[in-house]
Amino acid sequence: MSGSSLGKLFVVSGFGESHGPAIGGMVDGCPPGLALCAADLQRDLDRRKPGQSRHTTQRRESDTVEILSGVFEGRTTGAPIGLLIRNEDQRSKDYSEIATRYRPGHADYCYDQKYGHRDYRGGGRSSARETAVRVAAGAIAKKYLAEHAGVRIRGHLSQLGPIRPRDFDWAAVESNPFFWPCRESVPELEEFMDALRKSGDSIGAALTVVAEGMPSGLGEPIYDRLDADIAHAMMGINAVKGVEIGDGFACVEQRGSEHRDEMTPEGFLSNHAGGVLGGISSGQDLVVRIALKPTSSIRIPGRSIDRDGNPVEVVTKGRHDPCVGIRATPIAEAVLAIVLMDHLLRHRAQNAATQAPIPPIAARAPGA
Amino acid sequence: MSGSSLGKLFVVSGFGESHGPAIGGMVDGCPPGLALCAADLQRDLDRRKPGQSRHTTQRRESDTVEILSGVFEGRTTGAPIGLLIRNEDQRSKDYSEIATRYRPGHADYCYDQKYGHRDYRGGGRSSARETAVRVAAGAIAKKYLAEHAGVRIRGHLSQLGPIRPRDFDWAAVESNPFFWPCRESVPELEEFMDALRKSGDSIGAALTVVAEGMPSGLGEPIYDRLDADIAHAMMGINAVKGVEIGDGFACVEQRGSEHRDEMTPEGFLSNHAGGVLGGISSGQDLVVRIALKPTSSIRIPGRSIDRDGNPVEVVTKGRHDPCVGIRATPIAEAVLAIVLMDHLLRHRAQNAATQAPIPPIAARAPGA
Amino acid sequence: MSGSSLGKLFVVSGFGESHGPAIGGMVDGCPPGLALCAADLQRDLDRRKPGQSRHTTQRRESDTVEILSGVFEGRTTGAPIGLLIRNEDQRSKDYSEIATRYRPGHADYCYDQKYGHRDYRGGGRSSARETAVRVAAGAIAKKYLAEHAGVRIRGHLSQLGPIRPRDFDWAAVESNPFFWPCRESVPELEEFMDALRKSGDSIGAALTVVAEGMPSGLGEPIYDRLDADIAHAMMGINAVKGVEIGDGFACVEQRGSEHRDEMTPEGFLSNHAGGVLGGISSGQDLVVRIALKPTSSIRIPGRSIDRDGNPVEVVTKGRHDPCVGIRATPIAEAVLAIVLMDHLLRHRAQNAATQAPIPPIAARAPGA
Amino acid sequence: MSGSSLGKLFVVSGFGESHGPAIGGMVDGCPPGLALCAADLQRDLDRRKPGQSRHTTQRRESDTVEILSGVFEGRTTGAPIGLLIRNEDQRSKDYSEIATRYRPGHADYCYDQKYGHRDYRGGGRSSARETAVRVAAGAIAKKYLAEHAGVRIRGHLSQLGPIRPRDFDWAAVESNPFFWPCRESVPELEEFMDALRKSGDSIGAALTVVAEGMPSGLGEPIYDRLDADIAHAMMGINAVKGVEIGDGFACVEQRGSEHRDEMTPEGFLSNHAGGVLGGISSGQDLVVRIALKPTSSIRIPGRSIDRDGNPVEVVTKGRHDPCVGIRATPIAEAVLAIVLMDHLLRHRAQNAATQAPIPPIAARAPGA
Repeated sequence: MSGSSLGKLFVVSGFGESHGPAIGGMVDGCPPGLALCAADLQRDLDRRKPGQSRHTTQRRESDTVEILSGVFEGRTTGAPIGLLIRNEDQRSKDYSEIATRYRPGHADYCYDQKYGHRDYRGGGRSSARETAVRVAAGAIAKKYLAEHAGVRIRGHLSQLGPIRPRDFDWAAVESNPFFWPCRESVPELEEFMDALRKSGDSIGAALTVVAEGMPSGLGEPIYDRLDADIAHAMMGINAVKGVEIGDGFACVEQRGSEHRDEMTPEGFLSNHAGGVLGGISSGQDLVVRIALKPTSSIRIPGRSIDRDGNPVEVVTKGRHDPCVGIRATPIAEAVLAIVLMDHLLRHRAQNAATQAPIPPIAARAPGA
Repeated sequence: MSGSSLGKLFVVSGFGESHGPAIGGMVDGCPPGLALCAADLQRDLDRRKPGQSRHTTQRRESDTVEILSGVFEGRTTGAPIGLLIRNEDQRSKDYSEIATRYRPGHADYCYDQKYGHRDYRGGGRSSARETAVRVAAGAIAKKYLAEHAGVRIRGHLSQLGPIRPRDFDWAAVESNPFFWPCRESVPELEEFMDALRKSGDSIGAALTVVAEGMPSGLGEPIYDRLDADIAHAMMGINAVKGVEIGDGFACVEQRGSEHRDEMTPEGFLSNHAGGVLGGISSGQDLVVRIALKPTSSIRIPGRSIDRDGNPVEVVTKGRHDPCVGIRATPIAEAVLAIVLMDHLLRHRAQNAATQAPIPPIAARAPGA
Repeated sequence: MSGSSLGKLFVVSGFGESHGPAIGGMVDGCPPGLALCAADLQRDLDRRKPGQSRHTTQRRESDTVEILSGVFEGRTTGAPIGLLIRNEDQRSKDYSEIATRYRPGHADYCYDQKYGHRDYRGGGRSSARETAVRVAAGAIAKKYLAEHAGVRIRGHLSQLGPIRPRDFDWAAVESNPFFWPCRESVPELEEFMDALRKSGDSIGAALTVVAEGMPSGLGEPIYDRLDADIAHAMMGINAVKGVEIGDGFACVEQRGSEHRDEMTPEGFLSNHAGGVLGGISSGQDLVVRIALKPTSSIRIPGRSIDRDGNPVEVVTKGRHDPCVGIRATPIAEAVLAIVLMDHLLRHRAQNAATQAPIPPIAARAPGA
Repeated sequence: MSGSSLGKLFVVSGFGESHGPAIGGMVDGCPPGLALCAADLQRDLDRRKPGQSRHTTQRRESDTVEILSGVFEGRTTGAPIGLLIRNEDQRSKDYSEIATRYRPGHADYCYDQKYGHRDYRGGGRSSARETAVRVAAGAIAKKYLAEHAGVRIRGHLSQLGPIRPRDFDWAAVESNPFFWPCRESVPELEEFMDALRKSGDSIGAALTVVAEGMPSGLGEPIYDRLDADIAHAMMGINAVKGVEIGDGFACVEQRGSEHRDEMTPEGFLSNHAGGVLGGISSGQDLVVRIALKPTSSIRIPGRSIDRDGNPVEVVTKGRHDPCVGIRATPIAEAVLAIVLMDHLLRHRAQNAATQAPIPPIAARAPGA
């Protein structure tokens, strides 16, 4: 069935399988006048692409994106922006095993249950390869948000298996292959990943994405709340099993007097809410955290069944990410950008004529 | 802007403010032929309604629902089902303070930023009162799922502040005002809540909702994944700050060999995934957990600003739930039912003619 | 299935059956700050309501609308506006005949084919009674368009059976029960309708609706063109079988040199296009014409079948409009207002930040 | 803004400009299991493509379509089907005139009003070239409808300027470049078109599209009626200014006793309704007629303005269709197929579990 789109006014649609001829899609609803070229998209695609360190899959894809429409003389026209990324490294191999046996913990079985027929090459549609389309589309949203709304989106890995950063520095994030905000503990990560790779196993991770410079007033209560749409988009990223806004599950043990973010004329005094109250942005930084499960494509044998229901033992060979969380930072950034862009346009639709007369306060009080 | 609907084929739309004349809405897309009367909806409305114990708000609402259309001779016709619940206990009081001052941690400020004009009586549109519409609509979905798809949905409080159940018994859940699955620790909850109420503060909570008897194959990868739509709907419930499917954030520290649910011809051997793989239901029980923040409407003074940006001290008087999680179980059940119903219809749309030929295995292997 | 809504950003949803307890619905997406009260809606409801002359059905409905939400202190808040109209004159009668026999030309048969179960009282959901909801919602759109966008929408009957106006005067339209723009030929209409009523037959009609003061730039090429959405909304009015924009079917015999509307710095020299080019409004008057079929509810016996497939003769008794076109003018106006309102908001979403720098020309050149 | 999609469950999205690198799109929601290859789409693309006779534009495009995803081992998988058609004959020419002057009757002016920036090469997004995407997508729908629902869709030109067919023969339609159902009058058409081409002018046309073998019960009253969605999709085809279902505007002068289609146990006795009653298909043939205006791209000088508002004279040079109606038959067929496919899936969503128990009668009584 349909359902391959994200957003309502800024609509990202994607198609493509891991080992088909290409992946691609379109961005419908980008305002006209945005300066845009393929290189603007390529930067984030390069951050996501595989094979950049020994800690990710060794599949080699240049992930070169082509803009097929919607841009003229270097600026968007308002028409849909067609995107195309050819698959290059579809290594020919024998898929007979994967075609008839279900990897435990993988979507194989569910696809067969749903469709009765699936493209099993490299995971087909269920492969995380598809996220490249969201990254390309998200780069358009990020550019618009930065240039026309003053919003900056960035993310970092916040936990990998048992390892947490020991300190925090945005500047560190892009200086290591893990998007890790703590230079000091990078060697620890490398060691952990090397051992993991040798063991043939995989590991989970957590990511944090932040939007700074947020306008207040984005989000449509009650159903299409900003946080609800963020949760939807984040949970739609492969392997994500949990989403938190602000303090998230830590709220459970908090008291109201502790959780509420007090306000002064100079700004908010804290940000437990993560930038959203009642489904509407408050102008504080938007803070989102997601949990990614360990991938099921591992070399350690597991019990499963085949298409005929017989018991089999499954070992996944081939090139796989031992921690899908590592490459997920640009994906989560992209997805957040798409949702914010959509809500920015939705907000404008309603309020152009009836601007809120109440001046907003600062995202943060001086010293808070 | 628009955005007051949930679902694509089974569409629930709601309107209404806390202290307006009525709340209501419509369910569009319920299949014809379902036996239905107002009493079917009233049961869950009664579970949610305030004033049933000293631990929830003392507002008195009968929450009597009227079915205005879409049902004829005791069965749904396929036409939209109009729902109406009159507000009864809109206590007349002086709202001048709440109208001009922003409660810290509350949506007041965001509404004013967004709309420049809000119905401040009792929280207006941002009040959790609106959830009654979702509960009524969800009761229709629950009934259809139970009678026509064999799916049973139920939930329970799984944590209240620092307190966790010491054992687990579904039978206990409806026997106490907390939807608490452990009879033994109910007095502990009561004591905690009594002290909290006296202190004028509020507390967070966590809920778990489970769907048993799930068909496999529900969910539309990649964007409209079943888990993504669940996350959206759950995060759309007032006060929710986090959503987990299956093991959720616990995945972060898990290895693939530990997390993956092995399969045998007799069924799955575990359920870390919480019933969804690749965005599609596996037939295992669907397990969702949500975090609800402590409400910001508390009697303890807090720093804030007024509409003119001046510093003020805010104390929230009136009738409020000290733990909004307590009444949220029927809401979370309803919301899950709505999403599942929507995806059941979406699944049928595509697959009526091309049924999956692969017989599903059991949700759980014997002894697993 | 779902499908009881109109619009994407200004979303009108409706429920209700002819002889159920009430009809109603909601308007989701009305911008905040619009001055609004029930009387604003009542005016158009009164123009549409039955029993105002001997030429329409004698059913007596006050069509009193209640606004249940979304308006506070006399202004819209941005929250959904709930609408309720109680049915009053559900005359108790024996429906056994209509329940089991299909009126030829009526939707009875199709409803039973689709749903297998229908509310047959007074046509149930297929009754034109439901259009009252669209009229109420459209009145909100008309008011916003008039006050915040300078757009005026009005319509008139342009043909009734074989009778066409002999001259044209907007001022005449509201002075007779037919919305007829030619005072001189009103007696001719009355005579025709009196004879028709006696014969027990019904007659078709054509309507014209015009929007003046149109902004240019509304409409989303290629699929959600302004004219496409108008065609959808108009064809959704009961009994409509044809829709034309501008010259409509007369274009078939026109040459390009004749059809194209030439432009001068002072304005357009003609309006064959009816205000839309390439799916986008040009700023010229929007001109829409629709054909309404003669109702099938007539007293003249016709051949048909019953639910069991047996041949029967059907005679429709009861209170029916001999020309449904007569009361359709306010409906068509409302529907056009809803579509324009939706596209106005859609336009704002995209273009708030990138306003077109090209000044528009006048809708009409002086003397054109 | 967004709006480049058609359908709700069978969703066709398109991108691309006339002289950009490519046009393309995706079909989201095609059921799995349909046998499909590029050749299935190419047949209709070839029927639509330009340069097949002297009566259409001489632009040379092979319109070779590539299927990029969603098909595996010759069958659809249920995943979105990516489509790509490279533009080949983007003749390099001087566009400076068209870039700054508005062709009267063309969308140029409206695009500039809306976007402030447009791709003017060959009409850009407003070019009918984009319809190739709908034709490719529609071919998928046609194939599914034919093979899985027994529905056959075909169309023909029914009027060209003043010329109407003198008799009717489906067999003639594909034997001439006009899709004309009357062999005898083809020379008359050729003569008319030759003279027209010499004159530099253009002409309007009317088309008829028919769906045979219709299931009853398709369409969602009240708003998403089958006929409403058809009207939307047809009016979305470039140059269409009017849409009729069944008798269309002829209804205006009909009486109810004449218009209603009587029924017998053997079938319907007539088909004035064109296959839709109350927005739901009756099982009779679906009959749709559309009016296409004469294109504004003509060689005859016309008065207009430039971007700066100065008066100019415009003459459109280059390669253009003197009658856009000629190539529109495959487009209208495709568009009807897309709408029917969408409603077939929508119908299945609701009714899989509650099949209508009333056996349908024949589309036509023997001899009717």
